[in-house]
Amino acid sequence: MVAAAILPELATQVVIPVAAAVGIAFSVLQWVIVSKVRLSPERRGEGGAGKSGPSDYLIEEEEGLNDHSIVAKCAEIQNAISEGATSFLFTEYKYVGLFMSIFAVLIFLFLGSVEGFSTKSQPCHYSKDKTCKPALANAIFSTIAFVLGAVTSLVSGFLGMKIATYANARTTLEARKGVGKAFITAFRAGAVMGFLLAASGLLVLYIAINLFGIYYGDDWEGLFEAITGYGLGGSSMALFGRVGGGIYTKAADVGADLVGKVERNIPEDDPRNPAVIADNVGDNVGDIAGMGSDLFGSYAESSCAALVVASISSFGINHEFTPMVYPLLVSSVGIIACLITTLFATDFFEIKAVSEIEPALKKQLIISTAVMTVGIALVSWLGLPYTFTIFNFGAQKTVQSWQLFLCVAVGLWAGLIIGFVTEYYTSNAYSPVQDVADSCRTGAATNVIFGLALGYKSVIIPIFAIAFSIFLSFSLAAMYGVAVAALGMLSTIATGLAIDAYGPISDNAGGIAEMAGMSHRIRERTDALDAAGNTTAAIGKGFAIGSAALVSLALFGAFVSRAAISTVDVLTPKVFIGLIVGAMLPYWFSAMTMKSVGSAALKMVEEVRRQFNTIPGLMEGTTKPDYATCVKISTDASIKEMIPPGALVMLTPLIVGIFFGVETLSGVLAGALVSGVQIAISASNTGGAWDNAKKYIEAGASDHARTLGPKGSDPHKAAVIGDTIGDPLKDTSGPSLNILIKLMAVESLVFAPFFATHGGILFKLF
Amino acid sequence: MVAAAILPELATQVVIPVAAAVGIAFSVLQWVIVSKVRLSPERRGEGGAGKSGPSDYLIEEEEGLNDHSIVAKCAEIQNAISEGATSFLFTEYKYVGLFMSIFAVLIFLFLGSVEGFSTKSQPCHYSKDKTCKPALANAIFSTIAFVLGAVTSLVSGFLGMKIATYANARTTLEARKGVGKAFITAFRAGAVMGFLLAASGLLVLYIAINLFGIYYGDDWEGLFEAITGYGLGGSSMALFGRVGGGIYTKAADVGADLVGKVERNIPEDDPRNPAVIADNVGDNVGDIAGMGSDLFGSYAESSCAALVVASISSFGINHEFTPMVYPLLVSSVGIIACLITTLFATDFFEIKAVSEIEPALKKQLIISTAVMTVGIALVSWLGLPYTFTIFNFGAQKTVQSWQLFLCVAVGLWAGLIIGFVTEYYTSNAYSPVQDVADSCRTGAATNVIFGLALGYKSVIIPIFAIAFSIFLSFSLAAMYGVAVAALGMLSTIATGLAIDAYGPISDNAGGIAEMAGMSHRIRERTDALDAAGNTTAAIGKGFAIGSAALVSLALFGAFVSRAAISTVDVLTPKVFIGLIVGAMLPYWFSAMTMKSVGSAALKMVEEVRRQFNTIPGLMEGTTKPDYATCVKISTDASIKEMIPPGALVMLTPLIVGIFFGVETLSGVLAGALVSGVQIAISASNTGGAWDNAKKYIEAGASDHARTLGPKGSDPHKAAVIGDTIGDPLKDTSGPSLNILIKLMAVESLVFAPFFATHGGILFKLF
Repeated sequence: MVAAAILPELATQVVIPVAAAVGIAFSVLQWVIVSKVRLSPERRGEGGAGKSGPSDYLIEEEEGLNDHSIVAKCAEIQNAISEGATSFLFTEYKYVGLFMSIFAVLIFLFLGSVEGFSTKSQPCHYSKDKTCKPALANAIFSTIAFVLGAVTSLVSGFLGMKIATYANARTTLEARKGVGKAFITAFRAGAVMGFLLAASGLLVLYIAINLFGIYYGDDWEGLFEAITGYGLGGSSMALFGRVGGGIYTKAADVGADLVGKVERNIPEDDPRNPAVIADNVGDNVGDIAGMGSDLFGSYAESSCAALVVASISSFGINHEFTPMVYPLLVSSVGIIACLITTLFATDFFEIKAVSEIEPALKKQLIISTAVMTVGIALVSWLGLPYTFTIFNFGAQKTVQSWQLFLCVAVGLWAGLIIGFVTEYYTSNAYSPVQDVADSCRTGAATNVIFGLALGYKSVIIPIFAIAFSIFLSFSLAAMYGVAVAALGMLSTIATGLAIDAYGPISDNAGGIAEMAGMSHRIRERTDALDAAGNTTAAIGKGFAIGSAALVSLALFGAFVSRAAISTVDVLTPKVFIGLIVGAMLPYWFSAMTMKSVGSAALKMVEEVRRQFNTIPGLMEGTTKPDYATCVKISTDASIKEMIPPGALVMLTPLIVGIFFGVETLSGVLAGALVSGVQIAISASNTGGAWDNAKKYIEAGASDHARTLGPKGSDPHKAAVIGDTIGDPLKDTSGPSLNILIKLMAVESLVFAPFFATHGGILFKLF
Repeated sequence: MVAAAILPELATQVVIPVAAAVGIAFSVLQWVIVSKVRLSPERRGEGGAGKSGPSDYLIEEEEGLNDHSIVAKCAEIQNAISEGATSFLFTEYKYVGLFMSIFAVLIFLFLGSVEGFSTKSQPCHYSKDKTCKPALANAIFSTIAFVLGAVTSLVSGFLGMKIATYANARTTLEARKGVGKAFITAFRAGAVMGFLLAASGLLVLYIAINLFGIYYGDDWEGLFEAITGYGLGGSSMALFGRVGGGIYTKAADVGADLVGKVERNIPEDDPRNPAVIADNVGDNVGDIAGMGSDLFGSYAESSCAALVVASISSFGINHEFTPMVYPLLVSSVGIIACLITTLFATDFFEIKAVSEIEPALKKQLIISTAVMTVGIALVSWLGLPYTFTIFNFGAQKTVQSWQLFLCVAVGLWAGLIIGFVTEYYTSNAYSPVQDVADSCRTGAATNVIFGLALGYKSVIIPIFAIAFSIFLSFSLAAMYGVAVAALGMLSTIATGLAIDAYGPISDNAGGIAEMAGMSHRIRERTDALDAAGNTTAAIGKGFAIGSAALVSLALFGAFVSRAAISTVDVLTPKVFIGLIVGAMLPYWFSAMTMKSVGSAALKMVEEVRRQFNTIPGLMEGTTKPDYATCVKISTDASIKEMIPPGALVMLTPLIVGIFFGVETLSGVLAGALVSGVQIAISASNTGGAWDNAKKYIEAGASDHARTLGPKGSDPHKAAVIGDTIGDPLKDTSGPSLNILIKLMAVESLVFAPFFATHGGILFKLF
């Protein structure tokens, strides 16, 4: 018998929904502030009036504030982008919805068949003297949880996109007043998305647990096993969002750049370029909606992994509500910590110059980590009994609450380290990116060689950080430790998402400025925001990948427990072939996604060239290009091309589990995990570095940079080639890989009872 | 008690050295035939007279046969290349020699310390009732074997280089008579190297076993443990050869191409290019000497892995000499099978057109595999008892001789499949490379995206082939099965090396033709040889990587047995952190080697530019460039830059073993294996595909190719950029990776007793 936690059940039942509600309220507040920037010209004067900043002191010269036609133009472009994005997402959701429905049926049939659709209760898996709910209940509730996860993920991505396309033109308009105003608008919009996602993810999960609990009662094991369906739903949706959105955005981006920048020598986002609207739509469906779904999926999975492992710990067996939902308490505190952090960017300080943008974003990471460390200590002290027992693959392990604090904290701080390393390798303020830029002197080939080498090198420290977190948390609290370490890394997700979403919004703002024909000066301001955004995007991807590694391992551990495997011995042929084939899967997947982007980009290039060649007056700017055809090419390509990689990820665990059994599947999961993490980190950092090397040359902010530039010089052309190659690496194949490793793990976990009962038919036959 | 093998010990003692002697004699014969092509102008007329071809029918018009000045020029260029290569190798060997000496001392000290340098015999590890030789003996003999392996590897690489630089100009001269004559000269030279290496590797190993056996007597376990030093020596040498040679060749190649082809628009290998001699020297020190050392290392290691596992099988315990040296018997038969195969290329058929080159080389692979399958059946029937016992991590396993035949055969055939897949993805006769070439239409960026995707995709089938071989051989005969499967894949090494060495010789021949100012027609012929050579080089690398994967697993298994670990459970934190860090190592290593090539190439570019800008009359061809400075840049860079990656590979097992212990080290080995194989395959295929996509456009042999060309067109320029990026991938980082995985495994095996006794101090302390 263990001592109870200090926090009583009732208090816990209050704290979690309240934290979620506060997060949602804060999100709405930020939205209200952003909406005060008017897009209707006649009332433009009210623009910054209601702002909550400490002063309205204008840092840089205002310009074009009274040009009403520009405001109208911005509104029009914003509309076009928003409509394109909405229409694409609807098309995407239609196809994905079909796929998800079929998959939901599969989940029900497979899990229901474990006990032949019997409605009789069974002895529990871990405590044989108790009775647990039948497999059929697990099948029904897992399916419901799956649908719930998918829908939440879908809504998260969609709302994120809506917010981003609402804020992009507003950021452009604020850029007329100075870089600080523009920054704060983009950042607030990012915060809307960050808090909305974090809070709604928590709330839905909390409600689901309470509702499912009415049926499950004392059967925590059954309850949390069913809840894992939520993680699977979230991640499946995220997979299609990332892959589909990633192909869309990069086909448009690469296509637009190759003809516009390289062949026609017109600037990025020039309205004469037929692919420019598709490019801007892409930022919203790929980098915003896709990324939102992805991080939501990570969050849902790490919570589920922690919960399912917790259900077989002593507090699960003793029906201790508060420690059972410790993972949700951590997330609740995380929302509050992030809320405090956000105030530092929006209210306590003000950006006065371009050079302050990156430090401000970096400060967000540091502050949120520091505040959250205190939060974790608090919640570990209040929400956990001082001593409790964890089941570690059959053996028991006694854990103390301060040890669990260390587990969460090590994940949190490892995330910060990964963030810093990513920044170092992808920001053009440091030597690695400057070296890559310098290598453009000798052409595109050396640029690519140096960029690839940089990406490979950037893997080293993050892997050591991940390995250290795993070792510490695993040693202290077995797989539960790993699961809460992942949760620790994701506990500042609201801040992470805010600075992550800030990037594409700034990118779009720049595009709108260019298309609306605003002055060079304004474009420079949005470019500065965007350069910082490239780095934060890389940091966000670093977090996503690092947490994916921890989450996958925790899910993997839960899967192994649930499939009743005691060891995963590399020295058995079944496991080893799984390991080597698993390590190959990320390559197979990347080959598919890269090729898809390449082929779609080729089609886009041909269309853009066709329009330039056949539409008279296009280059002169007297005729409008046919944007819609380019949007259609991106849409069709991404819908068609997202199916094969999606199927690869979704079907692999099923095929391996059914034909080769749980041992081989364990090998596949471990192999995909250790190999996928490396490719994902290197791909996203290589791409980020190339992008910023190009921006470094374009900005020409140092003597060194000026010797490489200006725009249009040979080194700059070489840098543009690198940037284009990096696009699919950093925005399509790289970030999709962390979904690959998580999704295969969570899917294996959900189907574990089925595989354990009916799987491995090939080995049974021979 | 098991039944004896059919072949008596005496017969075995005769068969092995005789096969080796036949191999060496055949090698000398080929050399004599090559040497009949005279490089001294006055006696040139005798050139083809002594040829053994069925007819002297001239397929293509002869040209320039009477231009004596050209012959003199060729001889002069050959001299320069040979001198450059010799001087580099001597410098390299000086530094590596120092490193190897230190390492030899370490081996002695570490292994001697296991029993505190005691000279007393100890109870055996596997049969406790017997006494085995003391650890000190193991230390002494392992050190001797290490030195022996290193020296054999060094001599192999050096002789290979000598032969190649002897044959390159002769190939050029024969190209005047037609493509068939040139092909046969290059191929015979390759065969000299292939047979010399395979036979001498076998002979040295055979002699060492017999000499060591005088001391060890019945202690097979001790004997074969000491013999593993031979594999370590061979592979350590190979590491430096591959890395040093790889950096040398690619710094020169990239540097020469970037200024010559891209900036100055002069052809490849133009004598006005100051880096041209360095480039041709590089082919010989990297692709020939490095590759020779590499494959010798693989061969030595797979033999050692098989022997050490065999020593703990029932025939080791029953002192059965013939089955004990079954691995050597397989290699002996391999030499004879390859000899027969070679006759098909040199005597039974004749190449009459360019289109016949690739099929002829492909036929070599098929014939050698078919003949060898019969050979394996024979040697398995004669050389093995019908039933015997294998120790499988503590458990016993009964194996029948036909099962072992299957193990060897599955390795052999998996090698063929890997070869075919590699050919499909890297030859410009098939759609993958043609697609890559086509993507050059839209510039370098799409070329790179498609090329990377191709490399990733090309991993799939080879990994399945490797996984299947591992599963089958592991299931049938545990780690011994895996070891002999590796040996099976390498049993046709003589043929593999011959077609592998053929490539760089043809490449050099083309370079000499260009430099000697020979006609366009002759250059076309050597280019055709070279294009086939690119594909065979990729096939050779495919073999090297596939066999490395099998060898590493077998060595890993032997290590685990020797370190007395019973399971390597992924679900323990010690193993898992090893796994993820191990999977990272290939990235770290690649980052180092790619960056080294990049930096050295930058220096080379600057020097070449400097010469073009400051030496008057260089572009006009009236002044000679300063070749020596470029040779020096490549030499200095490769010597300096090979140390860090070399140290990473050599020190990692020591550091991990000493501080973290054998479990973590097991994880590192498994991780590096499953991750390294993928990068190695994809890197070498991507590079090969880019090279041949460029050659496809240049050759313009189809309507499609002609729409992309000619030389100097925009698609061609994009293709050249891809080719340049591929250089370090396919010739430096890719092929070095298979040494990384093998070397770490064999090093762990050699040091296993030390780690098991004194290792893991970090975990012991905390």
